[in-house]
Amino acid sequence: MNVPRANTFVLPSCCRNGKDNSGGRVCGIDVWLARKFLQAIGKPSLRVILWDGKEISGAGSAAPVAMLIRDRSALWRLLKNPLLHFGDDYSAGRIEIEGELVDFLETVYRSMARTRKFQKVSDPAAYRRNQPNLNSLPEARRNIHHHYDIGNEFYQLWLDREMLYTCAYFPDPDCSLEDAQIAKMELVCRKLRLQAGQSVVEAGCGWGALARHMAGHYGVKVRAYNISHQQIAYARQRAKTEGLQGQVEYIEDDYRNISGKFDAFVSVGMLEHVGPDNYRELGSVIDRCLTGQGVGLIHTIGQNIARPMSPWFLRRMFPGSYPPTLREMMALFEPLDLTVLDVENLRLHYAKTCRHWLERFENNRERIREMFDESFVRAWRLYLSGCIANFDIGSLQLYQVVFSRSSNNLVPWTRSHLTVPRAVS
Amino acid sequence: MNVPRANTFVLPSCCRNGKDNSGGRVCGIDVWLARKFLQAIGKPSLRVILWDGKEISGAGSAAPVAMLIRDRSALWRLLKNPLLHFGDDYSAGRIEIEGELVDFLETVYRSMARTRKFQKVSDPAAYRRNQPNLNSLPEARRNIHHHYDIGNEFYQLWLDREMLYTCAYFPDPDCSLEDAQIAKMELVCRKLRLQAGQSVVEAGCGWGALARHMAGHYGVKVRAYNISHQQIAYARQRAKTEGLQGQVEYIEDDYRNISGKFDAFVSVGMLEHVGPDNYRELGSVIDRCLTGQGVGLIHTIGQNIARPMSPWFLRRMFPGSYPPTLREMMALFEPLDLTVLDVENLRLHYAKTCRHWLERFENNRERIREMFDESFVRAWRLYLSGCIANFDIGSLQLYQVVFSRSSNNLVPWTRSHLTVPRAVS
Repeated sequence: MNVPRANTFVLPSCCRNGKDNSGGRVCGIDVWLARKFLQAIGKPSLRVILWDGKEISGAGSAAPVAMLIRDRSALWRLLKNPLLHFGDDYSAGRIEIEGELVDFLETVYRSMARTRKFQKVSDPAAYRRNQPNLNSLPEARRNIHHHYDIGNEFYQLWLDREMLYTCAYFPDPDCSLEDAQIAKMELVCRKLRLQAGQSVVEAGCGWGALARHMAGHYGVKVRAYNISHQQIAYARQRAKTEGLQGQVEYIEDDYRNISGKFDAFVSVGMLEHVGPDNYRELGSVIDRCLTGQGVGLIHTIGQNIARPMSPWFLRRMFPGSYPPTLREMMALFEPLDLTVLDVENLRLHYAKTCRHWLERFENNRERIREMFDESFVRAWRLYLSGCIANFDIGSLQLYQVVFSRSSNNLVPWTRSHLTVPRAVS
Repeated sequence: MNVPRANTFVLPSCCRNGKDNSGGRVCGIDVWLARKFLQAIGKPSLRVILWDGKEISGAGSAAPVAMLIRDRSALWRLLKNPLLHFGDDYSAGRIEIEGELVDFLETVYRSMARTRKFQKVSDPAAYRRNQPNLNSLPEARRNIHHHYDIGNEFYQLWLDREMLYTCAYFPDPDCSLEDAQIAKMELVCRKLRLQAGQSVVEAGCGWGALARHMAGHYGVKVRAYNISHQQIAYARQRAKTEGLQGQVEYIEDDYRNISGKFDAFVSVGMLEHVGPDNYRELGSVIDRCLTGQGVGLIHTIGQNIARPMSPWFLRRMFPGSYPPTLREMMALFEPLDLTVLDVENLRLHYAKTCRHWLERFENNRERIREMFDESFVRAWRLYLSGCIANFDIGSLQLYQVVFSRSSNNLVPWTRSHLTVPRAVS
């Protein structure tokens, strides 16, 4: 396997020097600025500690979480655009967190949601704001390459053994990540009511685990699309090792180029990268490729209220991404008279999945630091912690939506076919 | 019980004479008009038989369903506005159907959906079209009175013994209507995860069965709102008979006047009468009355594509009604950051429920004719058959939507609490 050592996570030059920059002596204006910052984010129960040890409190001086700001420029940047610069300065080590990073983020997110500036108000054009890249064909390739093509070996250090980088399903909260990812694949297969001999198309297949599970456990033929070169290479290799190459075809191409007719359409964790401007086109792809009695499933991160993602997340982690509201998702179905059969919200399962990932990530941080560098480790820690916090407090959702054509009367009568046992491997 | 003999279903004067009007001799222009009519509705597999026996075929002369038009004026009216006049002239006996009425309607609906004029195109203002009445407070009262206050004895002839006039839930397709309605109430209670001692508010309680079930089987306190005077009177009487008057309070008032805080909000079969213009207000009522850890459920007829109901249905059956799309329903949740936890589509269960109702209705048609008149019997037969047809072909859906506040992390982990056994009574 080809593991690139280059760090594709690039910090802006102003943040590169890290802790070498001394903040100088704290003066009255620094304290005033720190108070302004706390005020701007709704006075959370949080202590700000400046570079010389001076402490400023939001609500309650005994707050269990604190934010250490290591120099004056970081403090200034926080006031200017906290949603971008907190992430960059945390990554560069100019900001440190005392206490649990997830607790800190939840405290701040909850507090910001109560302020006028950051309050949760639906914005009909949310998905077009702060988007450095849209998702035309070449841009979609660039966006996907940015996150997914940084080395399979990196992801192997903290994902489950089947390499699923999407929300798991925990039949009970204590089950392992390995079991929960298999249970998720089972749940998806049962929602699709797969039967041997059927054909399935998968839009956005990651490292190909679901396609192999469907082929291996349900005897279906799968065509799985993905534009990440490294993921496709890995998926093909594993299908070969497992003797599934006759049943699973991995295609390095965009979902817009899907052709053929299939008994099932499935997409797990791709819609976040599609963008609402392209939902009608994705809907047309579904309409073109689904048989009359076919069933479809889309599994995606979503949100209650249409709001843009934070600029840090969009610039450093997932360019071009947007988690839709259920209302926005309906643009996939309504114009084509597709019937929504079932929506399940697995938000708390995604918080738990991310907790497993973060734990494994931390257990391997020395190795990851060697592969990339310290700022990469810190950025990914922040990203995974931010996901946990957002799913915990309900700022992000996870929707599984099952659909069919409106004329399909062979849909399941009840949900009795869906029960997934605790361990299904 | 007070049973009004007056028929509140009033046909326009042009239709009152029924079969007395002879159509005269069929001439060339009548045949041409019948062909035009068939063409306008997409040439379905259907025979039109004119008043002298002359037959004109749509697609296929051996079509199993035929439409007998008894006079020339009915033929003219069909061409002018089939969506209104078919219903009125069928009710008046100027149009008869050979073969099964449901089959006839499904044939025609499917054919119309293929034509340009009647094709399914989403209309953002659908719910404002063809609406003779909107749903301000006094109009809502008039609209509800029109359908629900025509005598409890009438509804007792064809509803189940608990008097539920909403979609039942058939754990298996063969279970009885009585069992299926109890299973529906169980499903709703389980989705709400009711626990003894909790408080519940019900918006639009019909004859009060769900409120009594929740109080009697789950030990919760219920405040149930309805603006139908006859339904409230019946509900109070039954609660008294069953010794539940201390636990269930039936309030003759509009949902907009709900006050207090409740652990659960439930509304089964009311949203169809609310109208999307009032969803934000209903959302505010929910936001006002739901506790922090509260759970809500809305059960409503819906549709895939935003389209107005037929003018006949709106004028003669349900003034002011509109079945929303899921997109439109989100106006209840998105502005208030409410989280949708679960959506289940019970479309085929409603087709089956309506089949049970129609069968019971037909078994009691002599009695109903005595209570009202023949045109009432025919109009209600058409209405119930039309419902079966629309749920069968997927023009109508039945959504159960479960929701909570976004910050509620005590929501169920999986759906394992939902399994409803075959017979739960």
